[in-house]
Amino acid sequence: MEHDQLSLIFGALADPTRRAILARLSEGEATVTGLAEPFDVSLQAISKHLKVLERAGLIVRGRDAQWRPCRLEATPLAEAADWLDHYRQI
Amino acid sequence: MEHDQLSLIFGALADPTRRAILARLSEGEATVTGLAEPFDVSLQAISKHLKVLERAGLIVRGRDAQWRPCRLEATPLAEAADWLDHYRQI
Repeated sequence: MEHDQLSLIFGALADPTRRAILARLSEGEATVTGLAEPFDVSLQAISKHLKVLERAGLIVRGRDAQWRPCRLEATPLAEAADWLDHYRQI
Repeated sequence: MEHDQLSLIFGALADPTRRAILARLSEGEATVTGLAEPFDVSLQAISKHLKVLERAGLIVRGRDAQWRPCRLEATPLAEAADWLDHYRQI
């Protein structure tokens, strides 16, 4: 039950670094190295964040092992936004 | 850094029971017992969920120790919705 898609999406958004990664990807695809650059964290930490985002369906990664650019998938974010929209009317 | 308000809000939303509690409270205030009723979980588990929601600023609770009705606070949800809105345009 805790691992329904909407919970995974909101869980992925519950971290400032992951939100910053999504903001960066909203400008275009990027590699792990490129994504890690603005943050004072290890590549390993960024990879961990990317796995969380990938599991929530918020990013997709290229297949090429050497160059695996990350790309934003906006559809699941729209699903989360739709859920929240209900509460705008209150 | 992980405990910024937006992360607390998204973290609180990352659970189906907590989202169901908010949906229930969007119809009007309720007591812990009333909120627990539709769920197959203990009062203690519901209280734990309410603490997470309260910490994120999504609910407020009455002061009366005997009767502490919970009320939805929609403003923080609007903040989360605003963050997501940026991604609708992608």
